[in-house]
Amino acid sequence: MRPVVEKLQQKGHEVVVVVPSTSLYMKSKEPQNYTVKVYPIPYTDEYLDEKFKVFVNAHFTKQSLLNVVLTSYFSTVEISSVFYTNCKSLMQNQELLQYLKESKFDVVFTDPILMCGPLVAEYLSVPSVYFLRGFPCGMDFAATQCPNPASYVPRLFLYNSDSMTFSQRVKNMLVHLLELFYCKPIYDPFEDLAYEVFKKKMTATELLSHASFWLMRYDFVFEFPRPVMPNMAFIGGINCVHKKKLSQEFEAMVNASGEHGIVVFSLGSMVSEIPMKKAMEIAEALGTVPQTVLWRYTGKAPPNLPKNVKLVKWLPQNDLLAHPKTRAFITHGGSHGVYEGICNAVPMVLMPLFGDQMDNAKRVESRGAGLTLNILEMTSSDISNALKAVINEKKYKENIQRMSDLHLDRPIHPLDLAVHWVEFVMRHKGAPHLRPAAHDLNWVQYHSLDVIAFLAVVVLLSLFISFKCCLCCCRRCFCKKGRTRKSTKAKAH
Amino acid sequence: MRPVVEKLQQKGHEVVVVVPSTSLYMKSKEPQNYTVKVYPIPYTDEYLDEKFKVFVNAHFTKQSLLNVVLTSYFSTVEISSVFYTNCKSLMQNQELLQYLKESKFDVVFTDPILMCGPLVAEYLSVPSVYFLRGFPCGMDFAATQCPNPASYVPRLFLYNSDSMTFSQRVKNMLVHLLELFYCKPIYDPFEDLAYEVFKKKMTATELLSHASFWLMRYDFVFEFPRPVMPNMAFIGGINCVHKKKLSQEFEAMVNASGEHGIVVFSLGSMVSEIPMKKAMEIAEALGTVPQTVLWRYTGKAPPNLPKNVKLVKWLPQNDLLAHPKTRAFITHGGSHGVYEGICNAVPMVLMPLFGDQMDNAKRVESRGAGLTLNILEMTSSDISNALKAVINEKKYKENIQRMSDLHLDRPIHPLDLAVHWVEFVMRHKGAPHLRPAAHDLNWVQYHSLDVIAFLAVVVLLSLFISFKCCLCCCRRCFCKKGRTRKSTKAKAH
Repeated sequence: MRPVVEKLQQKGHEVVVVVPSTSLYMKSKEPQNYTVKVYPIPYTDEYLDEKFKVFVNAHFTKQSLLNVVLTSYFSTVEISSVFYTNCKSLMQNQELLQYLKESKFDVVFTDPILMCGPLVAEYLSVPSVYFLRGFPCGMDFAATQCPNPASYVPRLFLYNSDSMTFSQRVKNMLVHLLELFYCKPIYDPFEDLAYEVFKKKMTATELLSHASFWLMRYDFVFEFPRPVMPNMAFIGGINCVHKKKLSQEFEAMVNASGEHGIVVFSLGSMVSEIPMKKAMEIAEALGTVPQTVLWRYTGKAPPNLPKNVKLVKWLPQNDLLAHPKTRAFITHGGSHGVYEGICNAVPMVLMPLFGDQMDNAKRVESRGAGLTLNILEMTSSDISNALKAVINEKKYKENIQRMSDLHLDRPIHPLDLAVHWVEFVMRHKGAPHLRPAAHDLNWVQYHSLDVIAFLAVVVLLSLFISFKCCLCCCRRCFCKKGRTRKSTKAKAH
Repeated sequence: MRPVVEKLQQKGHEVVVVVPSTSLYMKSKEPQNYTVKVYPIPYTDEYLDEKFKVFVNAHFTKQSLLNVVLTSYFSTVEISSVFYTNCKSLMQNQELLQYLKESKFDVVFTDPILMCGPLVAEYLSVPSVYFLRGFPCGMDFAATQCPNPASYVPRLFLYNSDSMTFSQRVKNMLVHLLELFYCKPIYDPFEDLAYEVFKKKMTATELLSHASFWLMRYDFVFEFPRPVMPNMAFIGGINCVHKKKLSQEFEAMVNASGEHGIVVFSLGSMVSEIPMKKAMEIAEALGTVPQTVLWRYTGKAPPNLPKNVKLVKWLPQNDLLAHPKTRAFITHGGSHGVYEGICNAVPMVLMPLFGDQMDNAKRVESRGAGLTLNILEMTSSDISNALKAVINEKKYKENIQRMSDLHLDRPIHPLDLAVHWVEFVMRHKGAPHLRPAAHDLNWVQYHSLDVIAFLAVVVLLSLFISFKCCLCCCRRCFCKKGRTRKSTKAKAH
């Protein structure tokens, strides 16, 4: 969200960023051009790091599929409880709330996945613009009243494409039905908090549905095409906006790589350490390619680290991917990284861990722009083969180049688009003309089930009455005939 | 479509415009900067004018609602047969087809309502971009696989808003069901023609579904928000793009109007004449306002024409509406005119005649930006009152100004947007990545009815088996008890 905030500020808007005292991404100590309001929360950086470490490590342990799903689910619920604690701290911070109220903001700009932005917007009665990758359980679809047919819109965690066999569609439908339940433990606390604050019952979906505009962090070059709503704009790849020159240190490393170029390797900021055995396998594989590998890794260096691998604590990922010498990108498949790979047309080797990463990875692979490895089962030679393939086989580069060309060919840059819609909501105090009337209908009404039932009753009733009438007529006819015949018979006698 | 074609040509593309020798809008004799290919059709300008005159006159005759609907319907079918004749002439013109084939175009840019563009695109195997207001019978929804819930997306001809009562929803559903049938006579001839040309069966919807991109000539400031698809862009108001200075003649008329300003009055290019009685009533009403009325009218001037009314054969509608002295706009409610009214924030008096005009009019009225009159029943004083109201009551100007502000506040001009997508399709040879997989599903699959039936059978079967098992267990239990009791009894005896 930072580029949007910075651009808004450049355009003369006053921006206040509200951050908890402990945060994964927003380090309040960094120098910033905008006002930052920090509110205290009852846990430390170390606690948060530890929580995430446990969460990540759970995905490095071999277990049955059911266990993987359950572990992932329960750790998600646990992490969401951290967010809840955050939010509760904010909503109980009377001083900050008073300040926010008095500031009379024009818009709340928030990633709604943390649920706190929507609550604050509601509390301040200020229109909001959401900036997001997506919600679990299709909450974004429900909250925007966006149709989401289970027949061709694949649900998360199934690795389906948009073209499914019957059995895949059955599974997709089952996961879709599960969506009605499995997010309850995540959102229930927020609903209780909303009740506490507003003194009225409000579901999480209802709260989210009050957003004026949704900036969706994806693009249909990567996402499968499906229905969307007029109050959505698609800004996938917005993170590729700023391309800076490489620092001397990195420029030197890249130049030293010679004709073979470099490979960029990062498993994202959430993975600080991986089990040593895994790290050694990876290191061994990386030694088999002639490219220089820049590996972002904060854990203990594996002892077998080959010469062509440079471990760094941090790397300018997008700037490196944009370099013409970059041959491949080894990534965990987070949407952020994948879009940087697409923007810069770098073929990928994907080692997904959790969340939407597996789906992202499968999607890149299905488009022939990369190869996916199972991080638990991959051997050293698997990694080596995959890496060599994406570097040396032309088709990977061609496919990612085509995706990149399509992705970058847009009428307006996603950053300008995002800023436009934030300013639009500020200027017009929301965007009620883009809110579909479907929000005022219940499920039965939305699907016209009451109308269909009514029409069915009318049709059946009229059929029944016509049938009865016919029967009656026939009887009369036959009765008459019968009587006439009888009387004729009588006469004959 | 002209501004798009002109801009494409300015950008260095070679554009060939294919026009029938007789056409309502494209007069091939006009000077043009692009190549125009004219193909002969078996009827004259006079014949076409006469057809449209009969069509328009039918709407000036008082008749029962049923008759209005039937007249309108049959004249639509008749006009579509004119389009069919056009298209047949083109598809039989071997010389022109050969030329088109040899020219190896990158894109076919067409308004698909005439159905011929889609046929030509298919014949040439060239991707196509559609430019349209909409289709009757929701053909555009079917062809794009765009959901179109009858519960809140109002169907044409019912004048419903997106917020409907139960009975309105029932009517909406009935019209929706009628849509399955009432367009058959319009599109059947084209399907036969397609069969003749391609030697395979193809429904009109299927043919239309091959479009790469849909440029929709509307905007959600005016249209009710509802689901859309990723291969659509909304370019409503594209016709307001070119604002030229008024010619000396019109400038003089406007300046002469003094402080009261002017009223622009046009019933569109299709209405050349209206019944004299109606014309006199209108003239009388126009005399009651102090504004100068510029009336575009090609029929016989009514004898009671007041001094403040200037009859003109043609007027620069958008340029006049853009003039700060313009106070009101009397229009038939065609989408073209309505968007010019919105762009320039001029309150409207609407006299709808046919097609989508009544719906457009009701929509403007429902937004408080104008007043609608029934052209058959309106009296002179009705017209006068409505005109005075929209001129003098502030709320009409305020409402249209708000609509205008929202409409004009867009991230990119609709003309640039349209040109971008045409060029996109040219550059990438279509846009297959935006085509939803729903096209490969039949109705039952799309709605997951097969999956639901399968799951229902599984659930019922497992319930049945569990029930049977329980029953069996119970029986055994009871039987044993029974037997034990019996044997106990026997012993006792």
